[in-house]
Amino acid sequence: MTDSYQQLQSADAATLRRAIRSGTYTGHTAGLGRGCLQANIVILPESAALDFMRYCQRNPKPCPITGVSDTGNPMMQTMGHDIDIRTDVSAYNVYIDGKLDRSLTSISDIWRDDLVAFALGCSFTFENALQQSGFSIWHIDANKTVPMFRSSIDTVPAGPFSGKMVVSMRTVPEARVDEVVAISRRYPLAHGAPVHVGDPSAIGIADLSRPDWGDAAPLSAGHVPVFWACGVTPQVAIEAARLPLCITHKPGHMLVSDIPEDAENPILSSNSNHKS
Amino acid sequence: MTDSYQQLQSADAATLRRAIRSGTYTGHTAGLGRGCLQANIVILPESAALDFMRYCQRNPKPCPITGVSDTGNPMMQTMGHDIDIRTDVSAYNVYIDGKLDRSLTSISDIWRDDLVAFALGCSFTFENALQQSGFSIWHIDANKTVPMFRSSIDTVPAGPFSGKMVVSMRTVPEARVDEVVAISRRYPLAHGAPVHVGDPSAIGIADLSRPDWGDAAPLSAGHVPVFWACGVTPQVAIEAARLPLCITHKPGHMLVSDIPEDAENPILSSNSNHKS
Repeated sequence: MTDSYQQLQSADAATLRRAIRSGTYTGHTAGLGRGCLQANIVILPESAALDFMRYCQRNPKPCPITGVSDTGNPMMQTMGHDIDIRTDVSAYNVYIDGKLDRSLTSISDIWRDDLVAFALGCSFTFENALQQSGFSIWHIDANKTVPMFRSSIDTVPAGPFSGKMVVSMRTVPEARVDEVVAISRRYPLAHGAPVHVGDPSAIGIADLSRPDWGDAAPLSAGHVPVFWACGVTPQVAIEAARLPLCITHKPGHMLVSDIPEDAENPILSSNSNHKS
Repeated sequence: MTDSYQQLQSADAATLRRAIRSGTYTGHTAGLGRGCLQANIVILPESAALDFMRYCQRNPKPCPITGVSDTGNPMMQTMGHDIDIRTDVSAYNVYIDGKLDRSLTSISDIWRDDLVAFALGCSFTFENALQQSGFSIWHIDANKTVPMFRSSIDTVPAGPFSGKMVVSMRTVPEARVDEVVAISRRYPLAHGAPVHVGDPSAIGIADLSRPDWGDAAPLSAGHVPVFWACGVTPQVAIEAARLPLCITHKPGHMLVSDIPEDAENPILSSNSNHKS
């Protein structure tokens, strides 16, 4: 038995994760679990975890940390109820020595006592906010993948982690750029304000029609390209670090948490405290 | 030769740090280095650093991380130019096995290759913002220390770090509470929005006139007590963890960084990128 994307569109996060855990849904999560924070996943041995956490702290726009597991404990306790990172993501990529080795729909068989799981905020959050403010987002409307580019912006290194920042591009009517900057800046856990507006060559992008990942987006008259720090950045840093083992979500197949997208911070228990 | 507080009031952050490094200023930093982010400091062995970083991630309101050094490297590279954490804080507290052992004005003699330094945002930032919006803050105007209380709110534990949240209190005209919440929420790296407004007993505080740290503040007619997560929280967690060695700043004697208080994030190099 399988669940279809359509069937799950109105499902809450817990229902969606149950379908994923039981293997009845293995698709992408864009547009699902509406209203809940989704996250990129990086799982690596504890020996590299402090350096990776420092890398994320130093590069908060591409790598906003929303949750970290205890070493060897697969439960993401602060991001929701009963989230088991071994089974609750719909597809995983396994890297050996920095190279993509295979994709899996569960990592229960390869989980180890020395692994630490990190969740990093993703762009779905600010894209929803932009849509709610009346902006149309080409890659969503056209059912494509957002165009992503390796920029010339260096990330701040930490231990073995380093590399250029990957950026994603959306086009915006020139007159509304300030509005887009202000809206996305409200979501520091979803990459925050853009890293660049306008001329792509200023950040090392030679040709907008040839993205390094995703699909090329048209640039309509009166629109300007706007670039945000992208969650693929840590993946590039991970490849450079050539860890013996690293597991990520498969792009588009995010962890869907129980944290409301507009929460002040991504911690379940403190969210229950900050309203008086 | 010594520099007086008055002489340094107009000094920029670098000048202030030079005076501290050379030992000509050993006082507190409230009201100094105006416009620059100040930070609480926690220095501990690498063996406890990943757990401490997880503790901070899980408790972002009391423990907002603004910078982390490389292991053994005393330079806080992402928070400013030439910041040496061994000498650039005006006073330090040294804890042995979780107990305060002594205070120092430099830790050069006890620095070790396995130490990691953490900087955590502090309330000075949102207090400045409140003052700029026309709020008077009693403890600043009266030259007292903000009243702090051990609340009944549990922090989310990580490894050996746990304990109740310490909160600081400021009183606010009842009609302007929403404004104060909105302003402080804009500063997630400075404890963000209050954790509680109103009845102190709701968060385990029996008597406002008897703070656990600092000075009791008067509650004027038409004012309500407002409680924020406090940077003393990690100090309590550190004492509970009974680490063989831990070094903090001495309360009030913060690290003054080069990061503008209104920066989107506390990283020098990325701040230069996010404006287009």
